[in-house]
Amino acid sequence: MVTGRSEEASGRIRLGMVGGGNDAFIGGVHRIAARLDDKFELVAGALSSTPEKSIESGQALGLERVYEDFKQMAIREARLKSGIEAVSIVTPNHVHYAAAREFLKRGIHVICDKPLTSTLADAKKLVKAAESANALFILTHNYTGYPMVRQAREMVANGDIGKIRVVQVEYPQDWLTEQQDFKQAEWRTDPERSGAGGSTGDIGTHAYNLACFVTGLKAESLAADLQAFVPGRKVDDNAHVLLRFEGGARGMLWSSQVAPGNENALRLRVYGEKGGLEWSQEDPNYLWFTPYNEPKRLITRNGAGAGDPANRLSRVPPGHPEGYLEGFANIYGEAAEAIQAFRNGTSPDASVVYPTVRDGLNGVKFVAACVQSSSKNAAWVKLE
Amino acid sequence: MVTGRSEEASGRIRLGMVGGGNDAFIGGVHRIAARLDDKFELVAGALSSTPEKSIESGQALGLERVYEDFKQMAIREARLKSGIEAVSIVTPNHVHYAAAREFLKRGIHVICDKPLTSTLADAKKLVKAAESANALFILTHNYTGYPMVRQAREMVANGDIGKIRVVQVEYPQDWLTEQQDFKQAEWRTDPERSGAGGSTGDIGTHAYNLACFVTGLKAESLAADLQAFVPGRKVDDNAHVLLRFEGGARGMLWSSQVAPGNENALRLRVYGEKGGLEWSQEDPNYLWFTPYNEPKRLITRNGAGAGDPANRLSRVPPGHPEGYLEGFANIYGEAAEAIQAFRNGTSPDASVVYPTVRDGLNGVKFVAACVQSSSKNAAWVKLE
Amino acid sequence: MVTGRSEEASGRIRLGMVGGGNDAFIGGVHRIAARLDDKFELVAGALSSTPEKSIESGQALGLERVYEDFKQMAIREARLKSGIEAVSIVTPNHVHYAAAREFLKRGIHVICDKPLTSTLADAKKLVKAAESANALFILTHNYTGYPMVRQAREMVANGDIGKIRVVQVEYPQDWLTEQQDFKQAEWRTDPERSGAGGSTGDIGTHAYNLACFVTGLKAESLAADLQAFVPGRKVDDNAHVLLRFEGGARGMLWSSQVAPGNENALRLRVYGEKGGLEWSQEDPNYLWFTPYNEPKRLITRNGAGAGDPANRLSRVPPGHPEGYLEGFANIYGEAAEAIQAFRNGTSPDASVVYPTVRDGLNGVKFVAACVQSSSKNAAWVKLE
Amino acid sequence: MVTGRSEEASGRIRLGMVGGGNDAFIGGVHRIAARLDDKFELVAGALSSTPEKSIESGQALGLERVYEDFKQMAIREARLKSGIEAVSIVTPNHVHYAAAREFLKRGIHVICDKPLTSTLADAKKLVKAAESANALFILTHNYTGYPMVRQAREMVANGDIGKIRVVQVEYPQDWLTEQQDFKQAEWRTDPERSGAGGSTGDIGTHAYNLACFVTGLKAESLAADLQAFVPGRKVDDNAHVLLRFEGGARGMLWSSQVAPGNENALRLRVYGEKGGLEWSQEDPNYLWFTPYNEPKRLITRNGAGAGDPANRLSRVPPGHPEGYLEGFANIYGEAAEAIQAFRNGTSPDASVVYPTVRDGLNGVKFVAACVQSSSKNAAWVKLE
Repeated sequence: MVTGRSEEASGRIRLGMVGGGNDAFIGGVHRIAARLDDKFELVAGALSSTPEKSIESGQALGLERVYEDFKQMAIREARLKSGIEAVSIVTPNHVHYAAAREFLKRGIHVICDKPLTSTLADAKKLVKAAESANALFILTHNYTGYPMVRQAREMVANGDIGKIRVVQVEYPQDWLTEQQDFKQAEWRTDPERSGAGGSTGDIGTHAYNLACFVTGLKAESLAADLQAFVPGRKVDDNAHVLLRFEGGARGMLWSSQVAPGNENALRLRVYGEKGGLEWSQEDPNYLWFTPYNEPKRLITRNGAGAGDPANRLSRVPPGHPEGYLEGFANIYGEAAEAIQAFRNGTSPDASVVYPTVRDGLNGVKFVAACVQSSSKNAAWVKLE
Repeated sequence: MVTGRSEEASGRIRLGMVGGGNDAFIGGVHRIAARLDDKFELVAGALSSTPEKSIESGQALGLERVYEDFKQMAIREARLKSGIEAVSIVTPNHVHYAAAREFLKRGIHVICDKPLTSTLADAKKLVKAAESANALFILTHNYTGYPMVRQAREMVANGDIGKIRVVQVEYPQDWLTEQQDFKQAEWRTDPERSGAGGSTGDIGTHAYNLACFVTGLKAESLAADLQAFVPGRKVDDNAHVLLRFEGGARGMLWSSQVAPGNENALRLRVYGEKGGLEWSQEDPNYLWFTPYNEPKRLITRNGAGAGDPANRLSRVPPGHPEGYLEGFANIYGEAAEAIQAFRNGTSPDASVVYPTVRDGLNGVKFVAACVQSSSKNAAWVKLE
Repeated sequence: MVTGRSEEASGRIRLGMVGGGNDAFIGGVHRIAARLDDKFELVAGALSSTPEKSIESGQALGLERVYEDFKQMAIREARLKSGIEAVSIVTPNHVHYAAAREFLKRGIHVICDKPLTSTLADAKKLVKAAESANALFILTHNYTGYPMVRQAREMVANGDIGKIRVVQVEYPQDWLTEQQDFKQAEWRTDPERSGAGGSTGDIGTHAYNLACFVTGLKAESLAADLQAFVPGRKVDDNAHVLLRFEGGARGMLWSSQVAPGNENALRLRVYGEKGGLEWSQEDPNYLWFTPYNEPKRLITRNGAGAGDPANRLSRVPPGHPEGYLEGFANIYGEAAEAIQAFRNGTSPDASVVYPTVRDGLNGVKFVAACVQSSSKNAAWVKLE
Repeated sequence: MVTGRSEEASGRIRLGMVGGGNDAFIGGVHRIAARLDDKFELVAGALSSTPEKSIESGQALGLERVYEDFKQMAIREARLKSGIEAVSIVTPNHVHYAAAREFLKRGIHVICDKPLTSTLADAKKLVKAAESANALFILTHNYTGYPMVRQAREMVANGDIGKIRVVQVEYPQDWLTEQQDFKQAEWRTDPERSGAGGSTGDIGTHAYNLACFVTGLKAESLAADLQAFVPGRKVDDNAHVLLRFEGGARGMLWSSQVAPGNENALRLRVYGEKGGLEWSQEDPNYLWFTPYNEPKRLITRNGAGAGDPANRLSRVPPGHPEGYLEGFANIYGEAAEAIQAFRNGTSPDASVVYPTVRDGLNGVKFVAACVQSSSKNAAWVKLE
């Protein structure tokens, strides 16, 4: 018998969490994602802006150290010998910047939910904070963690579909078809906390990020027609956006929270001079690839046709579906590789890819441009 | 034994055809569609603009009377006692008006392929000609003949999805991904014969017509970003269009001929305050209906959940798929009912519905507006 | 102008029909199938076993010659100079043999609905009658007319999936889940008219024929467990059958009329040493092909990957779905080619393929073996 | 700030593992499943039958206590104050019994992979050992952990589809289409370690268990036709099985490892007098429900139509796919609830359901019956 593992020896990264208290949604997702591959250990938290709730939620989770607020947490953890090395920020959007800043400036890595911030001003400040910090910043545009999204990106980069012409991305949901007052709906439809974008901020940024991630292209300008269909709603719940990418590709982006029959139907289609690729988040283990004039092919996660960039993020054989949590966990896995390399003063392997603070800034710019364009009757607005 | 059917007794409508010679595509489709339900008998034709080819093609089809050109045919048939009662016009677009006029003014019903004409000026003249004629005019926007499209239209009219908010319609194909020189490609990419619109004219008009047909709404304005991706192509092969409908609904229309992996992927999705409907041309026997907050339901042609407007256009039981030709034949079936009522000096049953010359005008206006908007950097253009 | 087509010049085959009166189902399907490609002209009929109904139905269809019964029709038509060249027999099963015999012995080609007969004795007599006649016999196992079924057959023959190991074929329906008394249900559940098999005869024979057609294999023996689930039903409404094919392949066949949610869900899957093929009747324009260890490929009718045997039976481009009626019409098309060759004293092109009287005999043997096996507690029964 | 969580306070169950060393597959799955919901902490292991490999593998996982063999582990852990409370047994099948016995008799709960054992004799002994132990026994027939499988079970129990008539279950794979020599293939095709069943043992038991779990029915007898298609293979790689259930329902089961194009295509269809249910493991978030004569409905995990038994095992909203690992983790979640109740001397809530040692025995009986039946030319064999 051999005994005696210390927690250090396990190599797990000590993680804290800001936000994610009892009635939150995405906090729980981050905790599962961090835990799935055993690379993180959640040890500390400031889980709510209400101190009592923060304490109560942290104790319920069995955390070792529970704080009343994130600033206190940042200060104390930074002083501890075995304080947290990274923090997950899973608050409503308007808190992201203030929270991230406290940890970044103390050298604690930040894993932050999207969109980056609720305002463009905050986003720019956060970029500065992140880029001048001695710490990493990872944004959880989790859909980029799906293996078949990586496969698509790789195939585009390899030229398998040739020069890109058309990008169709959509992200319809139906959960806000009627007025909703529960917590998740409430803050997401409040511009003070969510930002000026509604569907554009909450899901449009995902769609936009996914399109850019897979194609490797940046949009140069957009024209947006936003609507708030539900009476009294202060932010858009449906967005129709035309996109013009560098190099001449054109695109359409549709985000909606009022499309009955759509649960979380993020879908990307990319067409080039030589072929097409199609991927759907609700069926994420598959990627359709059509070389022009050849039969459509179904590439499966970990199956025939899938390459290294997809397979390194897969855990189980093809036909054993991985889903949303595994895709989310892949972002944590990339973060872990980057943090471990940072520990060692090295760079992670080139295969390690995660959304950055710049990607987050691009998302906030996307929202701002949508809102601006829509206010000008869908006039074209430059991005950057 | 009982003998002696005269052709008259059969009640078949005597039909002529303009265009549709040996190497045409849509002419053959019209002939099958006219024949499928045994309501028409094709007896005469001027099948090509080249007299020899017209004669040769007509004889190959075993027609009773073959003409060198459509004008000759119109004049002579009008004088015959048992001349044609109706004519199908299946030429390239730029010939539609001139041909239709000759028959309409002689009281011969016209069944005309879409788009109505190659120019807006011609379209307006054709509306006048049709509306002042003692004859019917039917436009073969054939997708409105699919039973489940009728079902969708009925459900919208019944209020099953409530007031409409969002209309997503798309019609991607891939057959023009590269330069093509065969006949079907050649005239469709020649603005002299096809009109100023490429994908917008050939398939965008179908998509637009379908959206209006099902929703019962008219678009008030549009903003379009058109591209000709294939070098040297003179008309658009991809179109991204924002739509604003009367009453506040918003929509997106995408037509493309350069999207590899899409054969003929016309698809309509309509979302209202109470539910959603989704239909796809490549899987036409099904209609998805989601009442908000209830499970999605699959309504099948002639099956559970389908109503009279769909069932009256169905021939075989559910699970025995009907397709493109049957949908097309349904337009001929509607035409036959209207013509038979016309014979009797009555009106057809209220259930009889077919695309009219006004629908055709709307399609040509749609193309013109797309071209105009795109030339102005996707500025909004009013329709009407 | 050129005038003067005689009916002869058109080349259409003069066709009669036995059965298919007013309230029949399959008769109407045969008429559309015969008409679709304009190769037949229905001119005579004995449409019902009730003389008045026969006359009434024939006149309603506008037939030139209407008979009170099929024998009268066979005798008189055989004497006419322009009598029918072929007859479609679309009666309930128990009439097939008697009717077919009358026409075959007078040199009139027979196109007969399936199953061949209601008894094995009749089937054997019909084989004799057909094989000694100076006329052709075509059995409408219509599913063999689907282009992608031809494609599958071709690929098996080409060795694309290697030596066959496993054949899974199923044909579930739900229309007899409860007791039904309308005409179609009534005779199909009456062993006097339908034969000893219920689901096995009506749809199991289709499934069995399809499996043999595509694989090119014959079953050597079967073990069947039949049920009549609906109280009072005299024939099976569900059949579970194990199959052993020559050469060692094994298979399963499931037919059911009591499987709610299945409309007409005939489906064939064939697996060999090198790959697999999957086809579904409700989605007939597609064939899935998986070469072992490669991505699954979607071969589409008239599209990339489809070969001549499929394309020669296609009318419209890929993405324009063809369905049940077109597949059925393809059997009529094959019949027409064979009959035209017969007229000329030649053989049809080798590509012409249709189900024969021997295939029909195999189907009746299949039913008999199922019934026999089931009566012996699913013991193995040899076929042949 | 509040500090001081002890591991005990966390409530995590201390877990050991037998098997699951470096090159294993299912061990890693169990570890993720145990970790996902943070209810277990893996602290000890004997991960290989080779002592050095066991030590090396355990250290690589950072386990606190690593043993050379499972007996040593059982003895020592049972004596420790904070020894393991439960052990996961993830070895090849032939080791299950011997390992389980050591832990059960010392009051350590066992979570064991399927099939229960490699022989029927072992299975019976294990039932005795489990039922006489002061410890729980949970078998990881993980597919019963999928929320929509629970939904199906609930609906059957509620009578939503009426009395069951037909059960179609299949589990095709393709990974053994050719001879394979890597570890996972090697022991699974060795009857000494796997048991007499090949595909029947490895996946047929899953299919059989799933059918029984959802329907609540037991099979009374079966007739099986097994094949080993790959030359030299000692166990079946394809199985065709007829099933007769108590109460008169009939079924078919197909398991195959040689069906190219099938990755892990477990699929269950159940038809009753009033409706049908269909579920597919590769698309596990959906359940199709067809009430007879009504449109098919799509019930989604955590979405409209899903009830408590499904929702209590769901983590994320509908449209955010959960997969294989989440379903597997649900078995661990059920185990955790049962173990926590055991700790407290109570029973878990009635909603807690997991496969038992008796289910395992039924699986081994199923394999034995298949082998016996097949050796007797597919004669019927009683299942107890």
